[in-house]
Amino acid sequence: MTYEVKRLQINYKTLDEFKKFKEYGIQELSMLEDLNAKISENEINSPFYGIYFGDSLAARMSLYKRNKRFDQYFEPQQDYLEVWKLEVLSNYQRKGLGATLVEFAKSFNLPIKTSPRVKSSEFWARMGFSPVTYDMDRDLGENPLIWLPEGVKEQKQTEED
Amino acid sequence: MTYEVKRLQINYKTLDEFKKFKEYGIQELSMLEDLNAKISENEINSPFYGIYFGDSLAARMSLYKRNKRFDQYFEPQQDYLEVWKLEVLSNYQRKGLGATLVEFAKSFNLPIKTSPRVKSSEFWARMGFSPVTYDMDRDLGENPLIWLPEGVKEQKQTEED
Repeated sequence: MTYEVKRLQINYKTLDEFKKFKEYGIQELSMLEDLNAKISENEINSPFYGIYFGDSLAARMSLYKRNKRFDQYFEPQQDYLEVWKLEVLSNYQRKGLGATLVEFAKSFNLPIKTSPRVKSSEFWARMGFSPVTYDMDRDLGENPLIWLPEGVKEQKQTEED
Repeated sequence: MTYEVKRLQINYKTLDEFKKFKEYGIQELSMLEDLNAKISENEINSPFYGIYFGDSLAARMSLYKRNKRFDQYFEPQQDYLEVWKLEVLSNYQRKGLGATLVEFAKSFNLPIKTSPRVKSSEFWARMGFSPVTYDMDRDLGENPLIWLPEGVKEQKQTEED
């Protein structure tokens, strides 16, 4: 079975569905404030993509293109995608929804970085992601994973200070 | 009761104790690699501070001074402290160990940033930390909290791109 990945429109219904996800935080609260400050709904695009089952959001992720000037991960330095808050609601797990979202991200053929907040290393390894070489100034408490398209390498960190 | 906060020496015993903490990741694995590559033990300092009960590490945090050129949070722009992996082992909770570690960090009188990975907003609010104003390019999926010493304000983000 294949699933359709949709870009999520930020309206009160979507923000209400977001409350079902564990990784709800200041990003969503800030979207709600923005929405409250506007006159009309349905007009704010977001970095969120998701998969619906009928009328219900079953899985989501943030997928956001970062400018090459932020790139501290890839060689040559380039625009890349950052994935965060990839999450499948428990009732919809084990159907391949997470993999469908990650494949959607990979379809842009840009390098991808993610720093999962939950233990999910086997899933990410299956999707072709590898841990970076730890660098304290860059990574702090993160555990970044990267996916490299053809011709892209991991950026070597240089010693500073 | 008061507890003594110690800077942790990175040796095989410490790294073994780190395995009891939930937030064990590539930072610790990289320390282990560094240790394996050296001849003698006990010589690597770390950003980790902790509290011992007898011979056992009961609580820890990473406390790391960041150069002002990394500062995207404080006004005026300045050196600040980043706290991550603040964690008290379950047998030692409700004794004030977490608060003792945070007070230790505050004693340097530098602004502090942290992005807790677990739901702990009440604890951080009690410690005087507040959420930042969300900025997608800076914060992505993080939920940063900051503590401001006298005379320091939150840095306002300017629109870029």
